[in-house]
Amino acid sequence: MSHNTFGHLFRVTTWGESHGPALGCVVDGCPPGIPLEPAEIQQFLDKRRPGQSRFTTQRKEPDEVEILSGVFSDGEGRQVTTGTPISLMIRNVDQRSKDYGDIASKFRPGHADYAYFKKYGIRDYRGGGRSSARETAARVAAGAVARKIIPGVRIRGALVQVGDIKVDRSLWDWDAVDANPFFCPDAATAVKWADYLDGIRKSGSSIGAVIEVVAEGVPAGWGAPLYGKLDQDIASAMMSINAVKAVEIGAGMAAAELTGEENADEIRIGHDGEPCFLSNHAGGVLGGISTGQPVVCRFAVKPTSSILTQRKTIDINGEEADVMTKGRHDPCVGIRAVPIGEAMMAIVLADHFLRHRAQIG
Amino acid sequence: MSHNTFGHLFRVTTWGESHGPALGCVVDGCPPGIPLEPAEIQQFLDKRRPGQSRFTTQRKEPDEVEILSGVFSDGEGRQVTTGTPISLMIRNVDQRSKDYGDIASKFRPGHADYAYFKKYGIRDYRGGGRSSARETAARVAAGAVARKIIPGVRIRGALVQVGDIKVDRSLWDWDAVDANPFFCPDAATAVKWADYLDGIRKSGSSIGAVIEVVAEGVPAGWGAPLYGKLDQDIASAMMSINAVKAVEIGAGMAAAELTGEENADEIRIGHDGEPCFLSNHAGGVLGGISTGQPVVCRFAVKPTSSILTQRKTIDINGEEADVMTKGRHDPCVGIRAVPIGEAMMAIVLADHFLRHRAQIG
Amino acid sequence: MSHNTFGHLFRVTTWGESHGPALGCVVDGCPPGIPLEPAEIQQFLDKRRPGQSRFTTQRKEPDEVEILSGVFSDGEGRQVTTGTPISLMIRNVDQRSKDYGDIASKFRPGHADYAYFKKYGIRDYRGGGRSSARETAARVAAGAVARKIIPGVRIRGALVQVGDIKVDRSLWDWDAVDANPFFCPDAATAVKWADYLDGIRKSGSSIGAVIEVVAEGVPAGWGAPLYGKLDQDIASAMMSINAVKAVEIGAGMAAAELTGEENADEIRIGHDGEPCFLSNHAGGVLGGISTGQPVVCRFAVKPTSSILTQRKTIDINGEEADVMTKGRHDPCVGIRAVPIGEAMMAIVLADHFLRHRAQIG
Amino acid sequence: MSHNTFGHLFRVTTWGESHGPALGCVVDGCPPGIPLEPAEIQQFLDKRRPGQSRFTTQRKEPDEVEILSGVFSDGEGRQVTTGTPISLMIRNVDQRSKDYGDIASKFRPGHADYAYFKKYGIRDYRGGGRSSARETAARVAAGAVARKIIPGVRIRGALVQVGDIKVDRSLWDWDAVDANPFFCPDAATAVKWADYLDGIRKSGSSIGAVIEVVAEGVPAGWGAPLYGKLDQDIASAMMSINAVKAVEIGAGMAAAELTGEENADEIRIGHDGEPCFLSNHAGGVLGGISTGQPVVCRFAVKPTSSILTQRKTIDINGEEADVMTKGRHDPCVGIRAVPIGEAMMAIVLADHFLRHRAQIG
Repeated sequence: MSHNTFGHLFRVTTWGESHGPALGCVVDGCPPGIPLEPAEIQQFLDKRRPGQSRFTTQRKEPDEVEILSGVFSDGEGRQVTTGTPISLMIRNVDQRSKDYGDIASKFRPGHADYAYFKKYGIRDYRGGGRSSARETAARVAAGAVARKIIPGVRIRGALVQVGDIKVDRSLWDWDAVDANPFFCPDAATAVKWADYLDGIRKSGSSIGAVIEVVAEGVPAGWGAPLYGKLDQDIASAMMSINAVKAVEIGAGMAAAELTGEENADEIRIGHDGEPCFLSNHAGGVLGGISTGQPVVCRFAVKPTSSILTQRKTIDINGEEADVMTKGRHDPCVGIRAVPIGEAMMAIVLADHFLRHRAQIG
Repeated sequence: MSHNTFGHLFRVTTWGESHGPALGCVVDGCPPGIPLEPAEIQQFLDKRRPGQSRFTTQRKEPDEVEILSGVFSDGEGRQVTTGTPISLMIRNVDQRSKDYGDIASKFRPGHADYAYFKKYGIRDYRGGGRSSARETAARVAAGAVARKIIPGVRIRGALVQVGDIKVDRSLWDWDAVDANPFFCPDAATAVKWADYLDGIRKSGSSIGAVIEVVAEGVPAGWGAPLYGKLDQDIASAMMSINAVKAVEIGAGMAAAELTGEENADEIRIGHDGEPCFLSNHAGGVLGGISTGQPVVCRFAVKPTSSILTQRKTIDINGEEADVMTKGRHDPCVGIRAVPIGEAMMAIVLADHFLRHRAQIG
Repeated sequence: MSHNTFGHLFRVTTWGESHGPALGCVVDGCPPGIPLEPAEIQQFLDKRRPGQSRFTTQRKEPDEVEILSGVFSDGEGRQVTTGTPISLMIRNVDQRSKDYGDIASKFRPGHADYAYFKKYGIRDYRGGGRSSARETAARVAAGAVARKIIPGVRIRGALVQVGDIKVDRSLWDWDAVDANPFFCPDAATAVKWADYLDGIRKSGSSIGAVIEVVAEGVPAGWGAPLYGKLDQDIASAMMSINAVKAVEIGAGMAAAELTGEENADEIRIGHDGEPCFLSNHAGGVLGGISTGQPVVCRFAVKPTSSILTQRKTIDINGEEADVMTKGRHDPCVGIRAVPIGEAMMAIVLADHFLRHRAQIG
Repeated sequence: MSHNTFGHLFRVTTWGESHGPALGCVVDGCPPGIPLEPAEIQQFLDKRRPGQSRFTTQRKEPDEVEILSGVFSDGEGRQVTTGTPISLMIRNVDQRSKDYGDIASKFRPGHADYAYFKKYGIRDYRGGGRSSARETAARVAAGAVARKIIPGVRIRGALVQVGDIKVDRSLWDWDAVDANPFFCPDAATAVKWADYLDGIRKSGSSIGAVIEVVAEGVPAGWGAPLYGKLDQDIASAMMSINAVKAVEIGAGMAAAELTGEENADEIRIGHDGEPCFLSNHAGGVLGGISTGQPVVCRFAVKPTSSILTQRKTIDINGEEADVMTKGRHDPCVGIRAVPIGEAMMAIVLADHFLRHRAQIG
């Protein structure tokens, strides 16, 4: 058991606070002989990096990753993994010097401030300390390593809902995802979100969102019932991300409204002689085991609790108070959750790939 | 890592198949000196037991639990835990002898049949084998033990949606839950469900449902961020239950539509001098740590895949086929998920109680 | 983490007390499709069974194992594993009814009595409860399953020292091991031990012993440095056996007296073109990883603390007292540790086989 | 499960290679509010640091530790733990640039070279890579943190044997330990060792050693039978240290020669009204649980395999070859194992303190 480790055979232990000197992770269990250059990790960090549009926090962090261990030259000019732990470190750069007075002593409603203080009796209040979304940089770095060990699996994410504005699934285009600042798979909806979020941003408010992550190419058989089910671990992974309040697999909550006939994804034999499902309400998982269909997961992210509106709260002395966040502000923290969700999916799948190989060979 | 164990310090390892001689679990990590009689476990098993109304499967199982280890006389006439592993066993009684021909060779769409076969190359097809909901009897037994070590916590569950018929929350009455065969907290909705489910049952179909589980009395501070968050473990626990496709904490998926102002549960000081939240969108968890508010979780259960309608599938030889389930039929497997959800909540909370005590004292 | 589970991917969770209705274990992580009949387990239980000679305890237990889950017909008349947890149960039969008065209230010096009471505040004093060597029956049963998944590995154990009488290694004969009641690999020494132990037995005393376990056929590469080293896990496994006070790998304690030249097992290429070590001070493990040489382990077992001589102690009320064990008596508990040591070696190797396969493929 | 993590509730994950840019560890599970300054860690690193006498390797490493996360000001000028993961990093400085030609392609007999290559197909041969004793700096740093959470426990180690020269236990003086370059508790023996090791050093050879670690002040009750026994975890911890080939608790291997009467540590009530053992053959552990007596452990370290004498080996192409190590040389690697053994004892005890508190409160 560990408080700060995720995964069983592919294990990620993260460390670091928002305003400490650095953050990072140790990736353990990676097979040897896998080419791994910093640039391969950096591309995913760049996707998650803050301050890339006016719709996310303006903190400026280069998020440059250093590989401190676990790789070596393969003698042919490539740097490869050695099977030993891979230590990844990212220096914090833009820990803006400021007066934390208000945040140091008052709990922001909806924020982890209160719960951390009640648990630990002490908290690093600078930028949220350990509960800051800064930590997710380490997840994204680890996810980049995870992708390398399941090269046949393609993992992509998209933002599918902001407030009550959902994407039009009939217009879904994966190529659109990188062409707008929202990871939106539908260009028309991206325009609507820009307008909507400008309003949210200017009013100092924030709004929730839904992210969808799809993994294609997962072979049938991954997952370890009954308590290491693939969907169970995906739920655990996504719920561990800051601000996530719900996780759905396949039909998700809507499964409650389906009849047995509707829900049962019928099977035929495809032109290639392989089993072919006629629908995917299961989201690629039955009985906790992958079926060979795309693994489909969605999760809801609540609005950031650091808003520019005054809210009722109490302080660390138990006195009633009002609090209002100043400074950098993130109108929709859900946007940057897209690469994070992808990373967590990659980590879960890499772990289950190894677990499957252990038991089945 | 274990495939069939749940929990870290309060650990439950379950075993057994639907049609084997018995099923059970080993509960490890239970503190010593806790009174534990079979009857205390039996009451929860009785709640989950099949065949108690026409709305659940007609399999008749007494589900009598035996405590095989881990308890001893305290010298004053009471049987108490000794701190050693508690082995609980339930004999299977009503494994109806029948011809499994069709099920043995054809995969029921929407069922774990296909995935198990692809993974293991062999499966115990009798009644679903290991993937059967029979296994949940062991969870309920373990949950009864879990409740004993967190006596200040009250855990209750209810069915809140069947198909598209939701309970009327303004009429919520916990006392109503045990007064109808659905664990419905609203007597009027229970009547509607009875009609609706009679239709589903007679047509040989099935329907999904949503369960809500609430834990009151959880003190602030339980939960181990970042990868042993309380809500993360609840999500993992609920998603490990058969047929569950989504898990929500507090506002759940609806958090996507909330603004920061709406979502932030404001805090005041109550008449008792204790912090008092003005709302509970957080579902009692912030930053993965309990806040002292009720912990609120919902999960969606898909319709059972064993229906009396013919569906397209393939067989174990890769040939296209049609399949239709015969015999005992469960129109809404979600009903019996209520005591199971309660049990899993109890197990997660008992585990986190011990984990919190380890680190904080 | 679990108190009563050993192993990571091949996991054994044991339960049960000396005088409870039964004891057993759950074996999790076993690959599917492996033939497994009760008789294959029974043969090892028979080897460990008490009461087979006058040199071990006279408790009469048939130790018949029941397989309660995890196996199914492969359709060709064989029972095979399904990849789901294997529950094994052994009924206790000869829990002799007696007055536990003295043992119930006084701590036997050298016995776990005292420590259990100090930890738990309660203990099942009947026959030692959970700390009884009865529990090792579950280990032996699990070890039998472990052997089935590493069929190329041959694991054999022998008693190599009783008191200060050591076997003559120049006369080592594996075939002799099953031809005497001591698992002694040297017939001449077995005769000496018989005489010696008759004296010990008649005087109501007891004596320690050393067991050696050798695993041949372990390929190079098993072991997971730095904290899942093969020899580390062997040390952990052997030290978990009742009464074990020391574990040696290869040269063991004597390594302290070796020079670098002596200790370095030189390597040549053998007639078969494979690497061939000229000695095996390493005991088959370098850097925590197997080398392909036989894995050699020894462990020392202290004399049983239940002796017929009066000893000074205290009682549960903290009063000074004298205590003397009556009834069944085991002059050299080390004898029966031979099959137990073999079982633990099998469990460690099966676990590392799966772990190696996970990371390396 | 993790390859590079030790401990369950107090968990240490180490990373880094001998010649990489840095090495370090993440310490997870540390309770909050514990004062922790770099200097408190540094003092133990200084004790382990290489190059402090002519009897250890001449590599010059300052071993300066950086605390990268997990601490914060307590508002009163002290830096304390926050309950979040503590990341410790030590830069490598003296990675001497040289031609690794011979070592890169030939396996040193008795060294992990061969086994790593067989397992991973690649190895960082510079200074032993991951298998280097450099990694133990991270253990010592983590051990310093561990000591802080069990302040009532005093952990001390000593070198008790070099080659066949043992300390005279009648002259044991803990104060002598820091007064000679061997951590020898007996000044007279230290003189003998100096002579003896000068001979070893000049001949380019090496020699094994035995270390003893004693923990005083451990209360009765720590340890989690049956598979988380205190002595089991100590054995695992010590065997995980480079070059260790055997571990003893209390009487150790000599327990084999004890009678039941000799072995049973009798108990009386002391002048303070507390139980008082008349001997400590048990080494402070019975049934896997601490008794309140000093916990006593010894372990044997083999001679370093890097010697200046030519030895027979093979190379990575499977060709026979001779190899001789050049450059820095460590005549008795056992010396520096003293602070490492202390650190591992501290880590095990801190872990068991938390585990005990979880289950017992």
